[in-house]
Amino acid sequence: MKSTTPAPPRRETRTQVGIIGAGPAGLVLARLLALAGIDSVVLEARDRGYIEARVRAGVLEAPSVELLREAGVAARLDREGMPHTGIALRFAEAPGEAAADHRIDFADLVGTGITVYGQQEVVKDLLADRIDEAGLPVEFEVSEVALHDLTTDAPSITYTSADGTSCVLHCDVVAGCDGFHGVSRPAVAAGGELTVAERVYPFGWLGVLARAAPTTDELVYAHHDNGFALYSMRSPEVTRLYLQVGADADPGDWSERRIWDELATRLACDGFTLNEGEFLEKPSVTPMRSMVAAPMRRGRLFLAGDSAHIVPPTGAKGMNLAIADVRVLADAIAGFYRTGSETGFDEYSATCLRRVWRAEHFSWFMTSMLHRFAPDTEAGDAFGVGLQRSQLRYAATSRAAATSLAENYVGLPHGAV
Amino acid sequence: MKSTTPAPPRRETRTQVGIIGAGPAGLVLARLLALAGIDSVVLEARDRGYIEARVRAGVLEAPSVELLREAGVAARLDREGMPHTGIALRFAEAPGEAAADHRIDFADLVGTGITVYGQQEVVKDLLADRIDEAGLPVEFEVSEVALHDLTTDAPSITYTSADGTSCVLHCDVVAGCDGFHGVSRPAVAAGGELTVAERVYPFGWLGVLARAAPTTDELVYAHHDNGFALYSMRSPEVTRLYLQVGADADPGDWSERRIWDELATRLACDGFTLNEGEFLEKPSVTPMRSMVAAPMRRGRLFLAGDSAHIVPPTGAKGMNLAIADVRVLADAIAGFYRTGSETGFDEYSATCLRRVWRAEHFSWFMTSMLHRFAPDTEAGDAFGVGLQRSQLRYAATSRAAATSLAENYVGLPHGAV
Repeated sequence: MKSTTPAPPRRETRTQVGIIGAGPAGLVLARLLALAGIDSVVLEARDRGYIEARVRAGVLEAPSVELLREAGVAARLDREGMPHTGIALRFAEAPGEAAADHRIDFADLVGTGITVYGQQEVVKDLLADRIDEAGLPVEFEVSEVALHDLTTDAPSITYTSADGTSCVLHCDVVAGCDGFHGVSRPAVAAGGELTVAERVYPFGWLGVLARAAPTTDELVYAHHDNGFALYSMRSPEVTRLYLQVGADADPGDWSERRIWDELATRLACDGFTLNEGEFLEKPSVTPMRSMVAAPMRRGRLFLAGDSAHIVPPTGAKGMNLAIADVRVLADAIAGFYRTGSETGFDEYSATCLRRVWRAEHFSWFMTSMLHRFAPDTEAGDAFGVGLQRSQLRYAATSRAAATSLAENYVGLPHGAV
Repeated sequence: MKSTTPAPPRRETRTQVGIIGAGPAGLVLARLLALAGIDSVVLEARDRGYIEARVRAGVLEAPSVELLREAGVAARLDREGMPHTGIALRFAEAPGEAAADHRIDFADLVGTGITVYGQQEVVKDLLADRIDEAGLPVEFEVSEVALHDLTTDAPSITYTSADGTSCVLHCDVVAGCDGFHGVSRPAVAAGGELTVAERVYPFGWLGVLARAAPTTDELVYAHHDNGFALYSMRSPEVTRLYLQVGADADPGDWSERRIWDELATRLACDGFTLNEGEFLEKPSVTPMRSMVAAPMRRGRLFLAGDSAHIVPPTGAKGMNLAIADVRVLADAIAGFYRTGSETGFDEYSATCLRRVWRAEHFSWFMTSMLHRFAPDTEAGDAFGVGLQRSQLRYAATSRAAATSLAENYVGLPHGAV
């Protein structure tokens, strides 16, 4: 029987750490490794313009900001990021009553806060640092990425470069920072020991970016009989607004008028004004899902960020978990090169998963407390809604409960979970 | 058409407050009213011996103890009650790991604690005070209780006394302290405005009272793959033990040997000994349910305790809510007699329901965190169990989370919720 022999790779290179994905996980890892004198190559499926424009999360935890500062990539973040020292929970204490704001004062409760700064801005800063300042490698528009020899100490990544060249990248460690749809999690699963815990929520978020001045300084999380609404902002000129909609809602059914009217209904509160303005992007619906894959490692392949776990956006944890993961991974890799010990590798998954599950729990808590569930389900029946109101009222009136919400929201210190 | 005219009541009496039910709600209310110089008659379906022996809840919140002290009925409670300043959460941090104890230190976290003292002991003390000391009326073994003219200022209660006499009790106010199965809640519902919020849990508790010395000083709440177990005690010689079982479990399927073996499995923990001993009563299965009826009033009828709300026993809140309700009711009634104002009556339901919902939420929280749910349900799948472990670990490691658990467990101050 005859077979065609595949053409040998036309380009063969070597680095210490091969990083798949130029999102916050991959780029922060690359930066931390560079600071430790460790070489890496970042491979990214999209082009630079695309990932610099992609609107995603917008909230940085306090420990994330500290890490970016320590890594020397926070100059613009410190200039342009919007520090927030609290959020408002907006809800009616009893059915039929008017909604009122109950502030969770992060500064008072836990002495710190969060910073509103778009994920794409973090990506821009990290790319500018890596490519324009340091001249270190990021390969964009790669395709056909495949992982090899992961359970040896000489793994490799094959891919096709933007110009169509077949490439192989030899390395000591592979970092799977390629998101929910990437090849890394399936490569761990192929080892046969991956477990995946999942929750799919029966709703999505319709997101709107509008040229309209925010009328409050802080995010407003609104519990309303019609469903959840989130009032947030990206700059002094731009508001970012979300409406809970059906999981399979068609954005086409939501005209600008209908969106503004529904926002006005759900966000209604004495003294609150909703400024309207031009939509800066087409409204889209984000599905809501929780997912935890474990372990976050197979041999020399380590998962970080969305490739290993997904949180619903209610807790604003996605980007922050990615950053927390790669801090642990960077330390493990640095330890390995310094001492030859693989202890850090062995502990990586369990260490990360403690913080991952804390964030999953907090995100589930915020999601469950704030959204409207179908009245014929346990979460949405009279008892379920009574639990929500009681939880909201408790968070607004008990210092212990408010502190618990605050410490999760601003982010427990890295290493403390 | 001929009709038989009912025989006129053979005994007609009058009091200020007619109290239906001689549980903790009815008897504490009667005592508080007596202290305020207000007359009442307590009607009870069972005989005195029965209600003095009926084993029910065994945990008194700090505010309940304070109230009983203020009411001058805590002398034996203070001598014989067992003060506890903490509980243990016993769980494995990850699947396959050994369970360990994580203490929630009430004294350190909130400066107070709970008192273990059986509900029937509270009932005994209150009956001794009312009947043997004060010579005030409690009618036992009444039947055919019916309520009349509730929306007037001259309601009445008809009933048949133990000796078969038809009686009518005229009063200004009726207190419906007659539990989940009593006539009071239906009488509110007959007004057409009662809403009932409910949750039925898919399991029950198999309860065992054993002549066996407790080997720990404090309650142990154990999370185990086989299901929840609770280790508690009623005296230095008696342990009270519970096992999560199916809602429709037949106690006949649970031999003494099987019960001890299952307790040993679920409570297994380094350094812990389970003392076995003779069963002091037949094991029975308590169903687990949450229920909130609102409003807790119709005209001059006021619901208090289990007639208005049910909590699963996990949070140890049932008797304490009854006591909190009647404190509010006693104040409202005293205000009415002092000033003629019905403001306290009008605020009664909303005031009570805030604390009721806090307790319902806390009881749901403890129940959800600690029990094993079916693996094919959201609460029991891999994600649901991951949330439980994360919540348990968080309660054990975050001061804010532990304080939140502690302040709910020992009871938020009356009037503070």
